[in-house]
Amino acid sequence: MAVEADSEQESSAYDRLMERVTKLNNVGNAAGILSWDQQVMMPDEGTPARSQQLSTLSSIQHDILTAEETGELLDAAESEDLTDEQAAAVREVRRDYERQTSVPNNLVTEISETTSEALPAWKEAKAESDFETFAPYLEKLLDLKRQYAEHIDPDRDPYEVLFEDFEPCLPLDQAEEILADVREQLVPMIEEIRESDTELAVDTFHGEFPADEQEALVRDALDTLGYPWERGRLDTAPHPFSSGTQFDARVTTRFDESDPIGALMSTIHEFGHATYTLGLPDEHYGTPLGESRDLSVHESQSRLWENHVGRSKAFWELFLPTFQDHFPSTADASVEDAYEAANQVFEDNLIRVEADELTYHMHILVRFEIERELLSGDLAVEDVPEAWNDKYEEYLGIRPENDAEGCLQDIHWSHGSFGYFPTYSLGSIMASQLYDAASEDIDDLEGKVRAGEFDPLREWLRENVHQHGARYETNDLVREATGEEFTADYFLDYVTAKYGDLYDLDAA
Amino acid sequence: MAVEADSEQESSAYDRLMERVTKLNNVGNAAGILSWDQQVMMPDEGTPARSQQLSTLSSIQHDILTAEETGELLDAAESEDLTDEQAAAVREVRRDYERQTSVPNNLVTEISETTSEALPAWKEAKAESDFETFAPYLEKLLDLKRQYAEHIDPDRDPYEVLFEDFEPCLPLDQAEEILADVREQLVPMIEEIRESDTELAVDTFHGEFPADEQEALVRDALDTLGYPWERGRLDTAPHPFSSGTQFDARVTTRFDESDPIGALMSTIHEFGHATYTLGLPDEHYGTPLGESRDLSVHESQSRLWENHVGRSKAFWELFLPTFQDHFPSTADASVEDAYEAANQVFEDNLIRVEADELTYHMHILVRFEIERELLSGDLAVEDVPEAWNDKYEEYLGIRPENDAEGCLQDIHWSHGSFGYFPTYSLGSIMASQLYDAASEDIDDLEGKVRAGEFDPLREWLRENVHQHGARYETNDLVREATGEEFTADYFLDYVTAKYGDLYDLDAA
Repeated sequence: MAVEADSEQESSAYDRLMERVTKLNNVGNAAGILSWDQQVMMPDEGTPARSQQLSTLSSIQHDILTAEETGELLDAAESEDLTDEQAAAVREVRRDYERQTSVPNNLVTEISETTSEALPAWKEAKAESDFETFAPYLEKLLDLKRQYAEHIDPDRDPYEVLFEDFEPCLPLDQAEEILADVREQLVPMIEEIRESDTELAVDTFHGEFPADEQEALVRDALDTLGYPWERGRLDTAPHPFSSGTQFDARVTTRFDESDPIGALMSTIHEFGHATYTLGLPDEHYGTPLGESRDLSVHESQSRLWENHVGRSKAFWELFLPTFQDHFPSTADASVEDAYEAANQVFEDNLIRVEADELTYHMHILVRFEIERELLSGDLAVEDVPEAWNDKYEEYLGIRPENDAEGCLQDIHWSHGSFGYFPTYSLGSIMASQLYDAASEDIDDLEGKVRAGEFDPLREWLRENVHQHGARYETNDLVREATGEEFTADYFLDYVTAKYGDLYDLDAA
Repeated sequence: MAVEADSEQESSAYDRLMERVTKLNNVGNAAGILSWDQQVMMPDEGTPARSQQLSTLSSIQHDILTAEETGELLDAAESEDLTDEQAAAVREVRRDYERQTSVPNNLVTEISETTSEALPAWKEAKAESDFETFAPYLEKLLDLKRQYAEHIDPDRDPYEVLFEDFEPCLPLDQAEEILADVREQLVPMIEEIRESDTELAVDTFHGEFPADEQEALVRDALDTLGYPWERGRLDTAPHPFSSGTQFDARVTTRFDESDPIGALMSTIHEFGHATYTLGLPDEHYGTPLGESRDLSVHESQSRLWENHVGRSKAFWELFLPTFQDHFPSTADASVEDAYEAANQVFEDNLIRVEADELTYHMHILVRFEIERELLSGDLAVEDVPEAWNDKYEEYLGIRPENDAEGCLQDIHWSHGSFGYFPTYSLGSIMASQLYDAASEDIDDLEGKVRAGEFDPLREWLRENVHQHGARYETNDLVREATGEEFTADYFLDYVTAKYGDLYDLDAA
């Protein structure tokens, strides 16, 4: 063992810490493949073994991170003379270490066991549209998650602590201000759209569009956007997602035979996530410098490609002929028709995952506000359905008629994921700011999109966002990339102009 | 932590040992999925990350198995009052533990690093048909593997020790006797076939058979045999294999457009492996009682389905109409024609993986004998090509003209896998004995195959082989299943009758 001792003396604590973190991330990335496989490839009856495999990998990750040796290496690395990059990598590990070592193992186990029971209970409650069946599980998970937050920081609002599991380096009060700005401006805008007589040209894009042909279409779209198949693949999954590493970032999609634009936008969304992952530096694989920043930033990348590229008129000028090749029934549609179909506001839609670019944020805000009140104790679990429905009426002018379409629609509570939703909206908002900055830096970006030249945009994103990994915290990353503080202004300007034009609104 | 201490006191050392082993096997099974994915799904450039992930999982497995705690649990479990089943499970863990703790980590690492270098060297050497390029790596791997064997048992023939990595509970001298019996009888039989004038009816089954249609064909074959798709899947891979657990046992195949019977037999072979895996008891998942016995037994299951079912006349009576539906060009072929095509002896073939049921064993014997002499030092590495070619001439009557078709044909040496090959032959030999016993127990098994009734055979195998997991050592398993000692007699009777008939041999 003399050889090992020697090599330990030679390498710095920083190097040894990164080696340990890479091991941790190798286990996490292995679990990522197992999870991808479970959703995309695994035969139906594989679940019992797969659950055990994933649970074992998760406990191994936890053991590696929370081991004494990790703490010692962190202490030692922090006292070394580190570059800014190295210091950032250590900061990221320290944050995870502090959080995971604060929470007792038996609480982690109890949360995990409770979510295992809560998931089928939620499924049953949703199928029967009966919130009461699910209420005791929600109650218990809220209680456990309050305990969890208290272990991490007993002096802070538990929601704030939980939010950091998904967005660890963007202050909640800042996020809240941004979301308030959005609510203030979007609620009246949505109301005006509901009341407007404008009818968008969408009929041509509804009908029967076979899944096989939709798959060929979205593969063409990925080719057009420059998805590198040598580092990725496309499959179908019930709930589309993207996962992987910079060496292998896969996307999934799904097909609704009545809605080819839905599949296309969903695919471009996942392409955006994958493009971020693929832009992480190869040489930092396994360390924080080769891992993505958190969920808001990730969502900014998917939303930028989906909304600012995929739903733009320039993109449809480029892509409509390909679309029409696949679906000759749309041969008479104009670019304007396609653009309108891709940007229709669904005024009566109650379901988040089917929402348009505008009303989407109201779905997020409803859950955000309800979660905050639940965790603070201001709202009782039994009162959730009514509070939920009231908010839908207030923000969207529609009232769910049952719990399945209302507060039971999303799976996240059964996972105990409180604090997750705001990152969806924050990502969209950030996307607008980043796209505006890219438009400033890239000569005639719109023209380039129209010409199918996506390299400049991808390179801009790589240089300003992707290549940094988790080096910068969220606000610093936005400031470095755009020269400004993170703000809702660009998003609000964008939707005001876009929807004002589409629906002839007064505000535009 | 009081809770954990209590529960430890309550559960037996055996239970805790099995919990630990299940963890170990969960990691191994996760690695199995990653490896399947690498061969079947992973995009080309995913290798650097995947190699790291697999290497991390492998080192974690090693750490769990060789930890002091495993040794303590083994000691404690062995002093408990165990059932026969439990004692067998402990015996299996003990064997692995003793082997892995005997070998120093730095030797394991050196072997692993050397094989990483040897693989590309072998590929290059094979491409250029130049053994000398590969020779230094073979030399080094032989040296390292001799050291490895010496750590495990310095008093025994290193080949014997290495053989146990693949077949830990069948004595090498017994294996050697069985292989000698086979050699003695097959060499003259193959010579007689070479010299016979009999021409089998194979032309109809050569030609152009599109891969898509071959895939439909092999899916029909899996349906016919009763492959449970809810616990499996079929994909293509460059080197067909089967992997997984009793909850999810997948098969792969490949298509050569000139040889549909090859794809069919290869698929049935992998189906046999998967059927074994699927027959392991669900309730023992993760422990030795829910894991398969070693490679000879596994190969007996694949060969039984491939040779005794797939290459039988009864199977072709059943399946030829389906084959002809897929390939109308074979519409005029008789069952006898198909049977002959499926059993043709390739007299001039130098390549193991393309060999027929008979000459196959000569390819195995050549390598087996050469490996033994290499490890004992009786043969120098530089003399391998000539020794190889001499043996081909002696056993098969053909002489390779270059190293690519000769001693460089298989990848196994670059993996440092010495001692592996005999299990291929032993499996085929065991398959004959098991099939004969099944035929005794099942009324009119041939008629059942002809009628497409495969449940009785699968049930017989499940009951006599699969359900025991690794409870019995190989000889005990064969004795329990067949009532006799493991012998080459059934295999020799089978090939003598079959090929005697096909080629009108005197011996028949």
